[in-house]
Order: sequence, then C-alpha cells, then structure tokens
Amino acid sequence: MLVQGKYFRTIWLKDGDDKILQIIDQRFLPHRFVIEDLKSVDDVIHAIKDMHVRGAGLIGAAAGYGMYLAALEASDKGSFDDALTQMALNLKSSRPTAVNLEWAVNRQLKAIDNGKTIDEKFRIAKTTALIIADEDAGFCKSIGLHGVKVIEEISERKKDKPVNILTHCNAGWLAFTDFGTATSPIYEAFNRGLDVHVWVDETRPRNQGANLTAWELLNQGIPHTIIVDNTGGHLMQNGKVDMVITGADRVTRTGDVANKIGTYLKALAARDNHLPFYVAIPSSTIDWNIRDGKTEIPIEERGEEEVKYIQGKLNDDLVNVLIAPEQSPAANYAFDITPSHLITGFITERGICQASEKGLLGLFPEND
Amino acid sequence: MLVQGKYFRTIWLKDGDDKILQIIDQRFLPHRFVIEDLKSVDDVIHAIKDMHVRGAGLIGAAAGYGMYLAALEASDKGSFDDALTQMALNLKSSRPTAVNLEWAVNRQLKAIDNGKTIDEKFRIAKTTALIIADEDAGFCKSIGLHGVKVIEEISERKKDKPVNILTHCNAGWLAFTDFGTATSPIYEAFNRGLDVHVWVDETRPRNQGANLTAWELLNQGIPHTIIVDNTGGHLMQNGKVDMVITGADRVTRTGDVANKIGTYLKALAARDNHLPFYVAIPSSTIDWNIRDGKTEIPIEERGEEEVKYIQGKLNDDLVNVLIAPEQSPAANYAFDITPSHLITGFITERGICQASEKGLLGLFPEND
Repeated sequence: MLVQGKYFRTIWLKDGDDKILQIIDQRFLPHRFVIEDLKSVDDVIHAIKDMHVRGAGLIGAAAGYGMYLAALEASDKGSFDDALTQMALNLKSSRPTAVNLEWAVNRQLKAIDNGKTIDEKFRIAKTTALIIADEDAGFCKSIGLHGVKVIEEISERKKDKPVNILTHCNAGWLAFTDFGTATSPIYEAFNRGLDVHVWVDETRPRNQGANLTAWELLNQGIPHTIIVDNTGGHLMQNGKVDMVITGADRVTRTGDVANKIGTYLKALAARDNHLPFYVAIPSSTIDWNIRDGKTEIPIEERGEEEVKYIQGKLNDDLVNVLIAPEQSPAANYAFDITPSHLITGFITERGICQASEKGLLGLFPEND
Repeated sequence: MLVQGKYFRTIWLKDGDDKILQIIDQRFLPHRFVIEDLKSVDDVIHAIKDMHVRGAGLIGAAAGYGMYLAALEASDKGSFDDALTQMALNLKSSRPTAVNLEWAVNRQLKAIDNGKTIDEKFRIAKTTALIIADEDAGFCKSIGLHGVKVIEEISERKKDKPVNILTHCNAGWLAFTDFGTATSPIYEAFNRGLDVHVWVDETRPRNQGANLTAWELLNQGIPHTIIVDNTGGHLMQNGKVDMVITGADRVTRTGDVANKIGTYLKALAARDNHLPFYVAIPSSTIDWNIRDGKTEIPIEERGEEEVKYIQGKLNDDLVNVLIAPEQSPAANYAFDITPSHLITGFITERGICQASEKGLLGLFPEND
C-alpha cells in the first residue's frame, strides 16, 4: 500500500543483500516512518516480542523470514537440525496468542526438512518465506474482493449516504504483508468509488487504531474519524455505524474469535443494535485443533507500563509520559474472546461464511 | 476524604474570606495537588466548562456556590434580578448533560427570591450554597450505607476471597463534595474490614479513572488495579468481576442513565455475564421531567484535542503529547445512554431500588 505516495510492503528482503530482512518498525508510527534491518533470528524474535512488527499475518510472515535467517545461522552450528529446532522453539514462544506464528514456523520446518543439502535447505527456506509473505498478500486481496460485496449492499440500501464502518485495532496492511484483512474490503470499496467512512477505535493500551489504522487510511486518502474505545456503543445506538469489521489473532474451528482486547465489547454492542459484525481472516488464522475460545486460547498478559505510560509527540520528540499514579498497579490483557454467536460472518480468502464449524468447513472442507 | 492523610472536601469557602471559593483543580491530578481560588461567577463557569471541577454532584455544588458569587456581583449592577437571571443562564449553559447544574441554579434562584433586601439575598445564597454542598455529602454517605449491603452479601458468599468491583470514570468523592457515589459503598465496605478490590477503568479520553479514581483509592489505601476501557468484558467473562458500580450524570424517571461514554458497553458485558450492574446516585441526578434517555438527554460533544492529545508527566513536568496523526480528525462524545433494562438497581440516599419508574417512585413518591 502507499506511504506518502510510494508503494511499500511491511516486510521484505533487502534489495542487494538477501541475508538482511527489512521491516517497517511500527513503534514509531504515525509520527516517524522508520525502516529497520533484522540480521538474525534473535533480531526477529525481539522485533516480534517488542512489537516492531505485530498483527497475525505479519507475525506469520516475520516468522517465515525468521526461519530463513535461522537456517542461515544453523549452518554455523554443530548440528543443523538441532540448532534449527531450538531456534524454531524460541521463535514460537515470542508471542502466545496468534496462531500464524506457530503455523509459519511449522510450515518452514516441514519444508526445510525436504532439503537434502544445507544449500538446498537455504533455498527452500528462502522460497518458503517469500511464498508465505506472497500468499498472505494474496489472501488479503481476496478478502477484499469478497468483503466489498457486503459494503456494496449497504451502500445501495443507503443510496448516496456514506457507509460507516467501525473497526478495532489494526487489521490493516500493517498487520499483514499488504492490503490487510479488516481494511481490505474498505480499500476495495474506496477504489470502486463507493462512499465510505471509517470509525477508528484508538485501541488502548497500544493505540494501534490511532497510531496505525488512522495513519494507513490517511495515506490512502480514505475518510475516517478517530474515537476512543468507549464510543462505539453510543455511535451504534444512534445509527452512526452500518457495520463492524475487525481482524482476529486466532479463530477456533467453531468460530470463536481471539482478537485485540475490547473486540468482545463492540460485538456485544453490535448485537444489541442489530448491526452486522464481520471478522476478516485468512484461513491461516484458524486453529482447527481447538473448539472453545474461552478455555483453549491463551490470552497474553503484557507489562503494566503499557497502560501507565503512553508514547506521544512533544514538539519534534517522541516521549513516554506517565498517565496514572505511579504507585497504582495496572493489568494489561492483550486479547479477549468474542464467542461465535456474536459474529455475523467470517470474510476469508475463499468467501464469506457463517461463524460456525459448519460455516468454516463449508469453505475449507479439507479440515473436516 | 483523605489526601496524603489530611481531610479535604472538593469545594469550600476560603477560611477567613468567604467571598472566595476554593476548589481542588482536578486537571493536574494525580501528578499535582492544586487548590484554585474562584472569585467570580465567570471563574466558576470557566472552572466547570474547562473541567477544573467535574462530576454531577460537584458541578451542582459549584453551581450553588457560583450563584452565591453571582448574588454578590449582581448587587453592583443596575437591576439585581436581571443581572442574577443572566448569570444564572450563563451558569446553566456551561455544560449540557448533568442535571445537577440546572437543579442547583434553579434552587438558588427560588431561595434568593425569598430575600427581601439585598443583604438578606446574600445570606440566603450563601446558606443555600452551603446546604447544597452539605446535602450532597450527606446523600453520598447514605448511598454508602445502603450500597455496602450489596458488597457484604457478595463477600459472605465468596467467603474469604476479595470482592472485585469494576467502576468506570470517577464517581468518587472528587465528583461530589465528599465520599462519592459509586465509591461510597466501597469506602464503607473497606472501613468495615471487608476484603475489596477495585478494577479502575482508565476512562478515555480524559482518563478520570486513572487520574482521579485510582488516586482517590490510593490515598484511602484501597486495593485497586487500573485497566484500559477495553478490558472489563474479558475480566467479566473470566470470573474476575463480582459487580459493577458506576455513577450517573442524569437519570430519567424511567431509569435510563446518562453516564460517561463507555458505561453502556460495560452494562452490556455485565448482562452477558449475569453480573450485577448498579448505578449509585443522589436523587438530585434524577430528571423527573423526561422518560427516554436516548431521545431526551443531550449528549455533549467536546473538542477533538481531548482525543488526539493526552496530558502526562515527563520527568517533573506535565506535558501534552500528540497521540494520533495530526491530520486525522477525531470525535469526542462525552456520555452515552445505558437503558434501564441493563441496570440491576439504583443505590440512592434513601435505599436501593429497581431501575424503573415504579422503582424510583417507590423511594421518591413525592415525584409521582
């Protein structure tokens, strides 16, 4: 997508040196656009843990590339396989909730295992990393093509009035390699000339909505308004929201959704106001091994400093300021579970389906 | 209540000069404890508009004292009555949602009208201001005595485990003249030796929870944890909340509640998880003239800078930092409506009742 008019993905191998991975370091957005070089699997783990990169698809892509860097490193160790296995374990444990991470690492392990020589293993790891990133972009594009139909329908019904779409957190192109999931139908609608307006939940504590989604929409020229996370219910009660689209970090085979903390509250408000609530996901986000979101998806707890301090721009500096009493403790749960019965449907790369095992298996029968 | 061990109210006439009103200027909490002198009705209007003071009861008390300062000023004008009426109108329009403001001004107008001389009008205005402030504190104390029974019941049921109470915004003593409404039962429970723990919603955009409620609880020594506004639903789903208590800015005679933006979302989550959701109010918060919250209570829209900038502490300075793209617009609705059917009950100065016209009239039959 566009950054000040220039095309970017969120992650790529450096032009002229394919042993260096480059990412947009998202910690400085929207105030600064910083590109970071990652030269080792530890760099990748640090970038995932410390959220230089974040979002289900991008974590998966980073893990894919991370395994390629791991393969390069493993060749210097005594046993390639042992070293690679250990680095794979380290990568997997960098964040607990997104299933794409584990999925990408396992896919690489399986692929690399097919290589007969170390050189062949490198080549396979690199190709697989590129394929994972490309597939992610392709899936996101398809999600846009399917999801745009929902927006078109609402737009027709509303005649010339704008379609108001609420989104939570960032499931935009910054959370994937390109296009995004929740945003992809919006970009597609905008490109088709539909009148759309996006309510952007700021998404505390890390403000991915205000920092990333608003910045994305601004760069694409899409009308949007930032709101605090408390506001969505009021807007829905007053006819100012036509639909909600969010992404997800993990989806059970029965359709329960783990997504950024606060998603569940918006889903409750959408149901109370009879509004469609869609979750846009590539199928890599579905964990076919689990059935119950509440008991089977681990919810990451992060440090209290993310709640008590916030980064902002002061003159030309980025600073962290204290926004609570220093002695008060804070808790920081990163995700919550939205049960499937609150979800109108999933928008996937293969089409739209009901939020149920039957719905998901209808589109992905190979997991039956 | 206590500030670093010393007793304070939120508003009082200056010791030794009763023509000066003193308030705690809440804009600097929790980082600095600032007392401000207000010398004219315009000072009071400015303090209400700019939220040096806020909260239903305290706005009412400030309006009561403001009318006393207005009476002092009116005696310098041509027509005392015309001047007073104009100042009363100005005061009333300083904020639109809280009914206590209008209620206190009207009560003063009626009382002052009984004075036969200007001197007598002064005396009445001063006495009425003091009575409004004292009544507010007394009502809050009574709310604590009634509300503590709910906490005691839960505490007995949970045996030795702490009672976890979630609250939104600040309906603490800082929102009234003393004790608070939502916090009053908590203070009472703590004083009786019950094991309580409070989840404090930070309450964006102005963070009255993190800035004020947490600071209050810290000063009283009550266990608490700050959370972002997105978190309550997750906590409720996982058995970590036993009850919710909030305040209100205006209540219809049928029991609909206008309170800080985001209250509605917590009420939905409480219902979805079968948890009691109480609203603690003095009867001055009830607007007996209206029946439907959604159509009859005006919802204040405030400036976008409250969303896009946040005040925090950097080293020893208080600074405002930008936390969104400069060019992105933001919307700032200050309140939302929680329909009566989501509310378990009102805790008032006369007892606890159902959130319905019948329930409210049962306690306040004089409004039938």
